[in-house]
Amino acid sequence: MRKYFLLLLLFVNLHPLHAEDGYRLWLRYDLITDAALLQDYRTHISGIYITGESATMAAARRELTTALTGMLGKTIQEQPKPQGGTVIAGTATALGPLLPKGSLSATGEEGFRILTTAGRTIITGNTDAGVLHGVFHFLRLLQTHQPIQTLDLSSAPGIRYRILDHWDNLNRTIERGYAGFSIWDWHKLPGYLDRRYTDYARANASIGINGTVLNNVNANALSLSPAYLEKAAALANVFRPYGIKVYLSARFSAPIETGGLKTADPQDPQVQQWWKDKVKEIYSYIPDFGGFLVKANSEGQPGPQNYGRSHADGANMLADALAPYKGIVMWRAFVYSNTNEDRFKQAYDEFKPLDGQFRDNVAVQVKNGPIDFQPREPFHPLFGAMPRTPLMIEFQLTQEYQGFATHLVYMPPQFREVLMADTYAKGKGSTVAKVIDGSLEGHSLSGIAGVANIGNDRNWTGHPFGQANWYALGRLAWDYTLTPDQIADEWLRQTFTNDTRFVNPVKAMMLASHENLVNYMTPLGLHHIMGYGHHYGPAPWFDKGARADWNPVYFHRADSAGIGFDRTATGSNALAQYTPEARRQWATLDSCPDIWLLWFHHVPWNYTLHSGNTLWNELCKRYEAGVQGVQTMCNTWDKVSQFVDEERAEQVKMLLQIQLTEAGWWRDACLAYFQTFAKMPLPAGIPAPAHTLEYYKELQFPLAPH
Amino acid sequence: MRKYFLLLLLFVNLHPLHAEDGYRLWLRYDLITDAALLQDYRTHISGIYITGESATMAAARRELTTALTGMLGKTIQEQPKPQGGTVIAGTATALGPLLPKGSLSATGEEGFRILTTAGRTIITGNTDAGVLHGVFHFLRLLQTHQPIQTLDLSSAPGIRYRILDHWDNLNRTIERGYAGFSIWDWHKLPGYLDRRYTDYARANASIGINGTVLNNVNANALSLSPAYLEKAAALANVFRPYGIKVYLSARFSAPIETGGLKTADPQDPQVQQWWKDKVKEIYSYIPDFGGFLVKANSEGQPGPQNYGRSHADGANMLADALAPYKGIVMWRAFVYSNTNEDRFKQAYDEFKPLDGQFRDNVAVQVKNGPIDFQPREPFHPLFGAMPRTPLMIEFQLTQEYQGFATHLVYMPPQFREVLMADTYAKGKGSTVAKVIDGSLEGHSLSGIAGVANIGNDRNWTGHPFGQANWYALGRLAWDYTLTPDQIADEWLRQTFTNDTRFVNPVKAMMLASHENLVNYMTPLGLHHIMGYGHHYGPAPWFDKGARADWNPVYFHRADSAGIGFDRTATGSNALAQYTPEARRQWATLDSCPDIWLLWFHHVPWNYTLHSGNTLWNELCKRYEAGVQGVQTMCNTWDKVSQFVDEERAEQVKMLLQIQLTEAGWWRDACLAYFQTFAKMPLPAGIPAPAHTLEYYKELQFPLAPH
Repeated sequence: MRKYFLLLLLFVNLHPLHAEDGYRLWLRYDLITDAALLQDYRTHISGIYITGESATMAAARRELTTALTGMLGKTIQEQPKPQGGTVIAGTATALGPLLPKGSLSATGEEGFRILTTAGRTIITGNTDAGVLHGVFHFLRLLQTHQPIQTLDLSSAPGIRYRILDHWDNLNRTIERGYAGFSIWDWHKLPGYLDRRYTDYARANASIGINGTVLNNVNANALSLSPAYLEKAAALANVFRPYGIKVYLSARFSAPIETGGLKTADPQDPQVQQWWKDKVKEIYSYIPDFGGFLVKANSEGQPGPQNYGRSHADGANMLADALAPYKGIVMWRAFVYSNTNEDRFKQAYDEFKPLDGQFRDNVAVQVKNGPIDFQPREPFHPLFGAMPRTPLMIEFQLTQEYQGFATHLVYMPPQFREVLMADTYAKGKGSTVAKVIDGSLEGHSLSGIAGVANIGNDRNWTGHPFGQANWYALGRLAWDYTLTPDQIADEWLRQTFTNDTRFVNPVKAMMLASHENLVNYMTPLGLHHIMGYGHHYGPAPWFDKGARADWNPVYFHRADSAGIGFDRTATGSNALAQYTPEARRQWATLDSCPDIWLLWFHHVPWNYTLHSGNTLWNELCKRYEAGVQGVQTMCNTWDKVSQFVDEERAEQVKMLLQIQLTEAGWWRDACLAYFQTFAKMPLPAGIPAPAHTLEYYKELQFPLAPH
Repeated sequence: MRKYFLLLLLFVNLHPLHAEDGYRLWLRYDLITDAALLQDYRTHISGIYITGESATMAAARRELTTALTGMLGKTIQEQPKPQGGTVIAGTATALGPLLPKGSLSATGEEGFRILTTAGRTIITGNTDAGVLHGVFHFLRLLQTHQPIQTLDLSSAPGIRYRILDHWDNLNRTIERGYAGFSIWDWHKLPGYLDRRYTDYARANASIGINGTVLNNVNANALSLSPAYLEKAAALANVFRPYGIKVYLSARFSAPIETGGLKTADPQDPQVQQWWKDKVKEIYSYIPDFGGFLVKANSEGQPGPQNYGRSHADGANMLADALAPYKGIVMWRAFVYSNTNEDRFKQAYDEFKPLDGQFRDNVAVQVKNGPIDFQPREPFHPLFGAMPRTPLMIEFQLTQEYQGFATHLVYMPPQFREVLMADTYAKGKGSTVAKVIDGSLEGHSLSGIAGVANIGNDRNWTGHPFGQANWYALGRLAWDYTLTPDQIADEWLRQTFTNDTRFVNPVKAMMLASHENLVNYMTPLGLHHIMGYGHHYGPAPWFDKGARADWNPVYFHRADSAGIGFDRTATGSNALAQYTPEARRQWATLDSCPDIWLLWFHHVPWNYTLHSGNTLWNELCKRYEAGVQGVQTMCNTWDKVSQFVDEERAEQVKMLLQIQLTEAGWWRDACLAYFQTFAKMPLPAGIPAPAHTLEYYKELQFPLAPH
């Protein structure tokens, strides 16, 4: 009979009407396919016992019931009292004597402990949210086929604020969104609560995300109006049980635009009072409101400099209004003026002098690199340079510069490269990670933000593998010591299958994908050579931008002598913003690894690199290697997609073909263009561009998403 | 064992991970829940046998296999040869001797015949598309729990062109779209084919839709460029097996905008040649391209009148280019100039004189009423007035004027009211339906178009009940003699459940919903009194529009003497555009039914209506009745939603609450405003408005979808 049962469940899991459309993300909870393991799990899990009646514990109860029923193929219910095989969940306080002795001090406010005792599994923590995180961790163990007989583990987040930034506009368009449109259906809020809101919260809670900024940093002041606060409050109500707080991007000029004031000067008492009143109003709608994210005096946004005040003046005004409610300000350091100064240097120049001037509840949010989320960037020179200020790091999950949602790019290798980079701010080992987790300078405010790649596509992220980057952001924010390999492994097992014939080759493909991307787009330290405005495709020739530093030619500086941006002392001297130890790695042609070369040096075309190739030849080979890398991904996928569902197999196959085409386009267009300067032939094995340079220059994409 | 099997399938159907999110529309194919019927179907269906290897027959094979497997709870496979219980599908030619004698002449090119013979069910037709339609009909019989033991039925469409018009822009916004954004992901086409495209085609084929206009009538000339033709061709390839052709909205000035010409004058030989070349190019991408839909010289769109030419000149130029390929032109009659003439009359005035001047492959597409898809409109006076021209009718499924996607409004009663209206063009019985099906004047070109209410919301139409209007459009275009009751019945059974405890009360609620809407929005013949621009909510006071006839005050004409638009001989005399017999019903206060009154008469506030109430009192009572009708829907739903899945039950509940709130808003705002003219008290039982008139006037919705 059991065999019959399993057969039927198999039939149902394969049922074409319930296709794998990707909506379930990594929380699929399908029947455990390993028969021995299933038997083992069934033996060790007989039911659940939940203590606590909060909305968070209700969420834990629902998740456990649904997940265990799905994975074990039998109905898992609450038991009136614990018995052998009971999964017990509750805070230490609620569990009381059910909990054996043992400290929970290491789990903090959001962490958890899972342990097996007397044949029961206990999931606990100091708070309901901690318990919920533990529940998701336990389910992850099952989904990834880990043993659960004798568990004893504790976990607590290494970073306090783990946040998704949505660049979502109130009309549901998304700036740099490639997975459809905003999942926030503002018009129907607050009356209509899309089921997706709950599933969004579940997904985030499962990876430890605890905050979401609902609206674009290029903000509309209307988002702070009562009508929209009521809508945001409805979302906050959905998210609250999952331990997720709502934040809003604040438009600095809102006191003028919606408050009727004549100024937004942060030193103006009326302005200060307006924000105090506004914050009070916000907390009347959202009692646990998280705070503001602010983009000020950047790319046309208003800010304190409009009134001769500093970023600190602006941030502190908001921080003072938020402080009574324990809200925070995340003030972005992504600023650059229309000057002749190297854009690389401007954020540092503006912010470093302000170190020590910010209130305790302000974090300065710094992008991973000094330019703008390029395929590869050196770590931002502000990391380590503002010891008296908590710095958050901002990564970009949406692939603005990384092929949109049609390229398979697994970003954790890039994230790790930055997090593990050594600033030498307090000597060797002063990694970026230690700056942002607060440990280097003893800050308690610490944060990681990811610009979300989420839209209303059925599978959330457009590309099925885009989900991995969302997943990884949460996992890394919780524990940045996790390696890209570990994260890819657990994501693949939950999202696709535990079959190692699939997991191992696909993991290898993911781990190689970022370097691949760098190769076919911006090898050897090239950066910012994409199409103008929409950022789709290559346009290294573009020089018609409204500002010099919006032009690719500003960044690559190719000429008959060579290519690259001299940021040494003979050039912009941006390198001087790093500590001597840090800058040393890049400072000379000899010391600088090939992959960073053109970030810091203008290099002759025939210069011999560490690889032994001339610059021109190496450039050609890297572009070609990138394209070949995509071809390898296509080949791998064709071999292993048989182990997963037909729908996603076909989706990924189509997307890889697009990526292959576009990788070839990048190679051909860039080499055709750079060859006009290098004036050297393509080395053996590099195919001639498919079209003339003029063809590539004339391509227009007026309707590409942007 | 069978009991165990059924229990398991039930468990699976209720599995929360496979929620009823509405994506499956009316093609759910879940296990037949009536045990006796399931037994009966299993006895009569043992397998399938498909003759024919075309893509269309492959689609039929997939659909039968999936659907029968799902509904019967056992794997249904192809059999090597027919036996007892085989469902046989193929064209008459392909079936050969398998088909008993009997004529298929009545089924035409797209119809089908289904009959039981020798214990087998045969689904056949003259074409593969006909067979596919038959397959969907057979599956509908099963899904609605009809007997299938002794079938013998034939069906053929009463209308030749059964079309959805998408007002979708190339940037994926949708004009008047309330269910998310365009399902056409232009940027990822042609490389990425969303599974949704196939499901869209399946859904349409199942109801007999055979054409889709991909892009907005306010067209972008880029949609005719090679890059976008390649994308449209990819969609056409997906739709073709389902008997669905692709059409495009053509921008009349495309020869200038993308062709580099200085004019778009239809008499200019270069322009004519440009369109001939363009059409040839289109057919090189899409060999079965359907043709053009054109909005010309209307609301700012370019057209032949820009060059002193007529609509016929413009349409004929395109028709000549399309004729060699059997393409058609659908030329819209929705035109009105910024003049003092009653907007009601302008389309008739412009088009009637052109009767007889259009090519054979041109249809003039006329909206159901003379203004613009109002909750209720009299039939358009052009119907019956252009005997030598095929007229298509255009309905609007997207609820621009009917509460967006948050109001439950089942539109077939409105559609039927228009289709069954008598034009008296050739004496009694000259219904609008007979005009548009071509039978009145012997036209072979006949068509019904619906402006789609489809977006990328998970459930396609935003409101789960919006699906019913899409469904009904197809079913009515196939057979307009189907009653709203019949269509609601079959839609509910397929989409929700066959449980009559649910079907009967919900059907009654659907059938009453349109009159309800008219009551709480625009009772007694009021029209066009909604918010400016976005058309959200009431704004009868609005008088600041850029043109007079964009203002509500233009249409209701309320003053101290009364309310309503005098369209008799003492007024605009629009009534003269109807035949004497048709106009008689509306011509005098005495003859005019209350529901049409203010369309045609300016009526004193204290005039006594047929109901016995004064106009003012009746107006108040109708508004209140509309609100109470929504309350009744809420109550009904609360009682019966237990019979359906929790997810959609909750969705509809939330939406009904929004509808109730907004119905009250309409009542309160309109009565507060009209009372300033009527200067009479609210009759007993009508609640005072919740807010002051000023409050309603000051409401702003800058970000409402539009």
